[in-house]
Amino acid sequence: MDLTALRTAHPDHWSKATAIRALTLDAVAAANSGHSGMPIGMADVATVLFEKHLKFDASAPNWPDRDRFILSAGHGSMLLYSLLHLTGYADMTLEQVKNFRQWGAITAGHPEYGHATGIETTTGPLGQGIANSVGFAMAEEIQRATYGKKAVDHYTYVIAGDGCLMEGVSQEAITLAGRHALSKLIVMWDNNNITIDGTVELSDRTDQVSRFKSAGWAVLEIDGHDPEAIDAALTQAKKGNKPTMIACKTHIALGHAAQDTSKGHGALTDPAQMQAAKEAYGWTTGPFEVPADVKSAWEAIGSRGAQERTAWEARFATLPNSKQDQFNRAYALDAPKKLSATIKAFKKQMSETAPKLATRASSEKVLEVLNPILPETVGGSADLTGSNNTKTADLGVFDLDNRAGRYVYWGIREHGMSAAMNGMALHGGVRPYGGTFMCFTDYARPSMRLAALMKIPTVFVMTHDSIGLGEDGPTHQPVEHLAISRATPNTYVFRPADTIETAEAWEIALTSKETPSVLSLTRQGLPTVRTEHKTKNLSAQGAYVLADAEGKRQVILVASGSEVEIALAARDILQAEGIGTRVVSMPCMELFAQQDEAYRKRVLPGGPVRVGVEAAVRQGWDQWLLGERGKSNKADFVGMDSFGASAPAGTLYEKFGITAQNVAEKAKALL
Amino acid sequence: MDLTALRTAHPDHWSKATAIRALTLDAVAAANSGHSGMPIGMADVATVLFEKHLKFDASAPNWPDRDRFILSAGHGSMLLYSLLHLTGYADMTLEQVKNFRQWGAITAGHPEYGHATGIETTTGPLGQGIANSVGFAMAEEIQRATYGKKAVDHYTYVIAGDGCLMEGVSQEAITLAGRHALSKLIVMWDNNNITIDGTVELSDRTDQVSRFKSAGWAVLEIDGHDPEAIDAALTQAKKGNKPTMIACKTHIALGHAAQDTSKGHGALTDPAQMQAAKEAYGWTTGPFEVPADVKSAWEAIGSRGAQERTAWEARFATLPNSKQDQFNRAYALDAPKKLSATIKAFKKQMSETAPKLATRASSEKVLEVLNPILPETVGGSADLTGSNNTKTADLGVFDLDNRAGRYVYWGIREHGMSAAMNGMALHGGVRPYGGTFMCFTDYARPSMRLAALMKIPTVFVMTHDSIGLGEDGPTHQPVEHLAISRATPNTYVFRPADTIETAEAWEIALTSKETPSVLSLTRQGLPTVRTEHKTKNLSAQGAYVLADAEGKRQVILVASGSEVEIALAARDILQAEGIGTRVVSMPCMELFAQQDEAYRKRVLPGGPVRVGVEAAVRQGWDQWLLGERGKSNKADFVGMDSFGASAPAGTLYEKFGITAQNVAEKAKALL
Repeated sequence: MDLTALRTAHPDHWSKATAIRALTLDAVAAANSGHSGMPIGMADVATVLFEKHLKFDASAPNWPDRDRFILSAGHGSMLLYSLLHLTGYADMTLEQVKNFRQWGAITAGHPEYGHATGIETTTGPLGQGIANSVGFAMAEEIQRATYGKKAVDHYTYVIAGDGCLMEGVSQEAITLAGRHALSKLIVMWDNNNITIDGTVELSDRTDQVSRFKSAGWAVLEIDGHDPEAIDAALTQAKKGNKPTMIACKTHIALGHAAQDTSKGHGALTDPAQMQAAKEAYGWTTGPFEVPADVKSAWEAIGSRGAQERTAWEARFATLPNSKQDQFNRAYALDAPKKLSATIKAFKKQMSETAPKLATRASSEKVLEVLNPILPETVGGSADLTGSNNTKTADLGVFDLDNRAGRYVYWGIREHGMSAAMNGMALHGGVRPYGGTFMCFTDYARPSMRLAALMKIPTVFVMTHDSIGLGEDGPTHQPVEHLAISRATPNTYVFRPADTIETAEAWEIALTSKETPSVLSLTRQGLPTVRTEHKTKNLSAQGAYVLADAEGKRQVILVASGSEVEIALAARDILQAEGIGTRVVSMPCMELFAQQDEAYRKRVLPGGPVRVGVEAAVRQGWDQWLLGERGKSNKADFVGMDSFGASAPAGTLYEKFGITAQNVAEKAKALL
Repeated sequence: MDLTALRTAHPDHWSKATAIRALTLDAVAAANSGHSGMPIGMADVATVLFEKHLKFDASAPNWPDRDRFILSAGHGSMLLYSLLHLTGYADMTLEQVKNFRQWGAITAGHPEYGHATGIETTTGPLGQGIANSVGFAMAEEIQRATYGKKAVDHYTYVIAGDGCLMEGVSQEAITLAGRHALSKLIVMWDNNNITIDGTVELSDRTDQVSRFKSAGWAVLEIDGHDPEAIDAALTQAKKGNKPTMIACKTHIALGHAAQDTSKGHGALTDPAQMQAAKEAYGWTTGPFEVPADVKSAWEAIGSRGAQERTAWEARFATLPNSKQDQFNRAYALDAPKKLSATIKAFKKQMSETAPKLATRASSEKVLEVLNPILPETVGGSADLTGSNNTKTADLGVFDLDNRAGRYVYWGIREHGMSAAMNGMALHGGVRPYGGTFMCFTDYARPSMRLAALMKIPTVFVMTHDSIGLGEDGPTHQPVEHLAISRATPNTYVFRPADTIETAEAWEIALTSKETPSVLSLTRQGLPTVRTEHKTKNLSAQGAYVLADAEGKRQVILVASGSEVEIALAARDILQAEGIGTRVVSMPCMELFAQQDEAYRKRVLPGGPVRVGVEAAVRQGWDQWLLGERGKSNKADFVGMDSFGASAPAGTLYEKFGITAQNVAEKAKALL
């Protein structure tokens, strides 16, 4: 590239873009790690986007009607940090930029949601940002249809790299966006032809233009270093009636000795090469020094949206008060006042009628009473609507002719669904939940982990949660997936035993502000075990005494979900033999671990032998069986230590020994 | 559809295809569960494939040069079981078909590899089969280039449905196949426009033809009920120089009342409707009864390949003996004789020179000595070759002009890589290993689980295995992934402490026949801790005493991988204070659990306090700390109970308290 030509053609643009390039070089050099090439290559695109198109106000980073900017190629984090610093986001100080990738700084190696304002989502695991963006754009559509264009009317912009486009989840994302004609979603592809291992051709020769078109996108192709072309493409993209992909031909590490090489992807820290690059850019100030005129030009961009924001505030104030309240409440993740009373009334009714239901059906019953009072919920399923029981009659289906529809047919896209649900939660104003079979936690994992890391309350409805699934066999029978989600920090894993506990789990999940929930629900019918009504949410304690010992307490059976019924039957056997047996229902290990020791000790006192019962692997149970005053030679577990098999559910429980008889025998063997 | 027209146009074809349809209806009705519509819809395509194209011999199901047939749409398992039964596979008796989905039958709900001959891979989790097929086709290319066309020359055929094509992994698969011009891969898409939730349009409007073309495929479009068109398309597909997708327009549940509906996808068990469908087919025999002439016609198809097989055997016998031996040894998954001695010599040298190396670099050193003596290994990385250290100089790169190359640049496709590696292992003759960052276990999970379920020895090289990754931050730092893989049945998780243990882990992984391995390797440098040479593979015992207590044994520190060094330093602190401390290195929990109790007791005797040390979550550790003669109040753990952070590795270890000082203090607090 002829840098001089670029520079002289658009000197003002050039100096602004170069500020990004220089800060990137300096920060990566200071950290001695990071990715220099991508921010340098995409500086022109980002500059034009922020200068001329992105609707934002650096002084009001959380303004609900701002455009969203998602850096899907998260390794290029210095692009985002530079932009936030230059445009004047208060928290993104120069000090923070200088402390790139250091302990305590908000400038992590990859952008972390919650660390700094202006970071709309955590990216780095490739493909996540572009898949989140589908949820952002859907949430915008739903809210626009709900509150009107004067309250909600913004774009979602994404910068994605070759890595994002190679990850399979990107296909799920772009086909969803195409299906729903999410015309306010604009993806700028950093088409630099370089990955870590070499040129893209080494591993991929996909015609991305034709690929996106086949998914229903508009595609524009431009020189990503030509500010006029970038501006024109963005202008055109905003007018279309499809999502738009702008293929931006760029040079990674533009102007650096490593330009157009895979070395340029990484940390460019050689002082002489840095100096040479800066000279080529015409950048003469010292490290981390941005000339005052350039900084002011950027700050003007940062405050460009202030007027638009105040105009929006005035428009928003004209909405009916009830609408404003609902909008603000949903953004604040506050529960509606009616929620608690509704759950209590529902629980009372269920305790009285004591239905026998699969907990997936219990879940549907709960949603039938909650969805009408929580207009912010958006449900869905990855092509298992009838099996996951996630759809209630009031939601309406999200579609081209019903943008206010609150149910999404996600198709066979567990990963894309999960990432898009995260995007919805991050956008704000909606509470997403979505279902699949629990075994397909495997497909959704990358996004489930990110929900936990980002501290957002996405709800994953995982039905068919054990060998109780039956004939579909071991490919569809989770045995390790409870352990997988429990191993993940900041995740609530609920395994309710009946309709009452299911209602309690939903209450917690839908009032949670910082923790995602996994609802582990059965395919098979379960009796109501909580037949005595309690207004208190007992599941919020994680575990509680469901049935206490009669006579001397010799045995404690601890169980979850479908195995609580088995534990109760085992208790009957033991009590009939005069062995006092307590049954503890443990719907949520994480919440039980958060209780104070006095409560935990009341539930799990030392002394009696303990048997855990769960149709899953033992991993995760020893803390309750051997720990918490338990003893290695006084505890046992009834569950799975292998994959399942294909047969009717009842047969499987018998063959794998998850029976009341076996539980009782194991308990007796310990006495 | 006018069934009469179809039937009269090709009566012989029709009766053969109808045998599949009738068996499917009968088996699903007997099981009262399953998926009837897909086998009924694709019966014509499958019949033509088996009759006129698929190279196979039902009497020799494992003939190495057979064509492979992969039912990616695994829910249509009755299609495969019908074909295997009709063509005369000895194990697929009528009794087995009648016991569809029952305990002990080989006819599981979804096809399970290892249950019956002719099942080339386990499918059901959608997208896996088509992604496996890329590995099958690559393995064929590599073997053909290695042994010549007279020994290896076969096709891989796939039937995939809309679900397979919606899953993101299919995009990774088809772009890989296109990149490598895998012309002997032929995918037949069951284009029936139906998913469980409704018509495909409900969730997807992708132009699949254009999508496959953009990935470098040839595409043909046919009527999937016209046997001549099917035959012509397969004939053309076999001649091309690209992978071919044949879009087969079909009617799900053809001829049944549920034809062309999502109800038709499931179990069609209504007796009257079944009877009506059979009448429409002109099928007059009772349940599970195939007319003798139709069965003979199918059996003739099953034996059609016998002559070709004997011809192949004759050709194979002309290969040099050394080549035949290598071919047969690799197919049998037998290790070369030299392997054991090579590992021993390497370990001796390493114990003597005691290098300080990251275990990912140790792994490369091991591969440098093993790859040359194991011509069956095929390595690769998901675009992290230099970071995963998976490439050795001798391998050569698999590419269009070097089909014998044994290194694959998988691109940013962790899931597609893992599924394709499974396909390679299933094809036979090659031993695949591939690398990514351990955190991206999340992306690879669906295929990692299937390797364990299928009992195939795929090797997953997972580097950057803790917060020791440093500045890239929590999105890239695994904390729960050791627990995730350990929770999975039939999986070896190796976390070697130094170069010696890394060599031992590789020896086990590359001699394993039925268990996949996860190698958890560090980014950061580690000292050699096994400085005294032992010829025995100590890691095969799972855990062993690395340094015993001097004086009275009061403390046992149990650690893995990078934390063994920390445990040894803690031992120094404790011994200096006169506290006798044993350090147990535990590179593989699963293998330790398999040792007899006497050995386990020698390593972990009751009495001393125990502290576990691993830079990961505690889940999974309690069995060794509290169990195995341990005590709740005499055990502790030093590790992670949250996500990590972005900072240099040394800082993170300090800040998260994973230090020798902290380990020593925790041990003392328990005394």
